[in-house]
Amino acid sequence: MAISRSNIALFFIFFICLSSANSSAKKKQHTPCKELVLFFHDIIYNGHNKANATAAIVAAPEGANRTILAGEFHFGNIAVFDDPITLDNNLHSPPVGRAQGMYLYDTKNTFTAWLGFTFSLNSTEHQGTINFMGADPLMNKTRDVSIVGGTGDFFMHRGVATIMTDSYEGEVYFRLRVDMKFYDCW
Amino acid sequence: MAISRSNIALFFIFFICLSSANSSAKKKQHTPCKELVLFFHDIIYNGHNKANATAAIVAAPEGANRTILAGEFHFGNIAVFDDPITLDNNLHSPPVGRAQGMYLYDTKNTFTAWLGFTFSLNSTEHQGTINFMGADPLMNKTRDVSIVGGTGDFFMHRGVATIMTDSYEGEVYFRLRVDMKFYDCW
Amino acid sequence: MAISRSNIALFFIFFICLSSANSSAKKKQHTPCKELVLFFHDIIYNGHNKANATAAIVAAPEGANRTILAGEFHFGNIAVFDDPITLDNNLHSPPVGRAQGMYLYDTKNTFTAWLGFTFSLNSTEHQGTINFMGADPLMNKTRDVSIVGGTGDFFMHRGVATIMTDSYEGEVYFRLRVDMKFYDCW
Repeated sequence: MAISRSNIALFFIFFICLSSANSSAKKKQHTPCKELVLFFHDIIYNGHNKANATAAIVAAPEGANRTILAGEFHFGNIAVFDDPITLDNNLHSPPVGRAQGMYLYDTKNTFTAWLGFTFSLNSTEHQGTINFMGADPLMNKTRDVSIVGGTGDFFMHRGVATIMTDSYEGEVYFRLRVDMKFYDCW
Repeated sequence: MAISRSNIALFFIFFICLSSANSSAKKKQHTPCKELVLFFHDIIYNGHNKANATAAIVAAPEGANRTILAGEFHFGNIAVFDDPITLDNNLHSPPVGRAQGMYLYDTKNTFTAWLGFTFSLNSTEHQGTINFMGADPLMNKTRDVSIVGGTGDFFMHRGVATIMTDSYEGEVYFRLRVDMKFYDCW
Repeated sequence: MAISRSNIALFFIFFICLSSANSSAKKKQHTPCKELVLFFHDIIYNGHNKANATAAIVAAPEGANRTILAGEFHFGNIAVFDDPITLDNNLHSPPVGRAQGMYLYDTKNTFTAWLGFTFSLNSTEHQGTINFMGADPLMNKTRDVSIVGGTGDFFMHRGVATIMTDSYEGEVYFRLRVDMKFYDCW
C-alpha cells in the first residue's frame, strides 16, 4: 500500500517532469503573447504642402526629381517619414506616438516597397519603441514584416506585423493599419 | 526492498529532472535548425540598360551623379534593388523569388557596403520572407550578416547568412551567393 | 518511516522539478549576459574636409544640397558613415573597429534621427559584428535602440543599446557613446 502510494506520487512527478521538459522544447508558442493594432498616416511632400507633409522624397534615380514620385512604379525613390500614430483610422485623433524611418520603392513593373522604421510610442498606455523591417508588396491586401526588436514596454520583443493600406488619396496621403503580433515578449 | 525500489525510481526521476533543466540551459544549439543556399543577381542601371537593370543608384554624395558609381570606392552611393533569386548560379534560371532592399557603399579607402534587404520567396518549395541586415566588406571572400526575422515558412526565424561574390562583370553585374544558416526556427 | 523518508525525497524532487520548470519559464533574465561600452566619432563632409570626413550627406529633400545639413532640423537628410570606434572618448585613440551604416533625420520640428548600422569590431578583444536599428531622438540625453543580431563573437546576440551624444562641434563632429547590454548571448 505504502509503496503503491509513493508510486502514484512518483508517476505524478514523472508527468510533471516530462511536461516541464516538453514545455521547454515547445516553449515558443505560435500564439501571440501580446497584440496591438495601430494606424499611421503618411502625407508626402509634393512641393505645395510643406505645413502638413510628414514625409519627403529624398532620393531618386537619375532623371527624377523629389517633389513627385518617380515614374516606373516609383522605382528608386526613398522617402523619409515622421508620421503620427493613432488608435483609430482618423488622422485627427490624438496621436499616441510617431512612426519614423524610411521606405523605398524597389520594383520597375509593380508597386513594392521596402520598409525600415520605428514606432516611438508615448502615451499613458504605451511607452517605448518597436522596430520593424521588411518587404511591403503594396498591391497585396496584407503584407507581413518582421518586428526585430523593441525597447521600454516592448523590451526585446519580436514578432510579425501585418500591414494593410487602409485608405489613400492620390499619391499624397496613405493611411496604414498595422496589426502587431508579438511572439517573444520577455 | 520496497524503499530501495522507490529510491531507484527517485534517482531515475531526479536524473530526468536534471537533464530537463540542463537541456533548458543549453537549449540554443550552435548547429543550424535549417539551411538554405540561394543566389541573387544585381544589374545596376548605367544609363543604357533600362530594360535589364534590376538596381539603381538613388543617392550619392555632392558632385557625383547617379548613372555611375561614385569615385573613392563609391563612398556614399545608395542603390535600391529588386533582384531575381535563383537556386543555382545561372541568371537565366527560373527565379524562386526576389531580393529587395538597398545597399550603400560606406568607405573611402576600400570597398565596403552595408545591406538592408529581404528575400521574398515564392516557389513550390518556399513561401515567405527572410530579412537581412549587416555590414558587407566586399573584398573579403565571405561576409556574415544577420538574419533578423522572417515570415511565412520562415516565421520568426533568426540566423546568420554568409555572402560571397560569386561573379561580377565590370561595375554593372554582380552575382551573390547566400548561405543561410538558421539557428532559431520556431 | 520508510514512506515518510521517500516522501521527503519526493518533495525535494518535486521542488527541483518546479524550479526547473520555473527557470524555464523565466529563462530570459532581464540582467544582461554581456555588456560593452564603446565610442564612435562622426565627421560629416562639408565640402572642405575631404581627408578627415567619415560621413557624407547623400540624400536630401528637394531644394537642399549635400554639403550642408538641410534646414528644418535637417529633415530628410540621409548620411552614410564609416566612423572609427574607440574604447574611450578620444578621437585619436587606436580604433578597435568601424561603425558603418546610415542615419537619417526624420522630423521637421525637432532633431530626431533613425539609425541602421553595424559595429565591425576587429581587435584582440573582440572579433565580429553587432547590428543596430532604431529611432534616435537626439535631444534626449539617452536613446535606446535595438541590437537585432550579431556575428563572430556576437553570434546571434540580441539586446538594447543606449546611445548618448558625448560631445559635438558645430554640425560637423559628433561623438557618440554606446552602452550595449546583451540579454540573449548564445
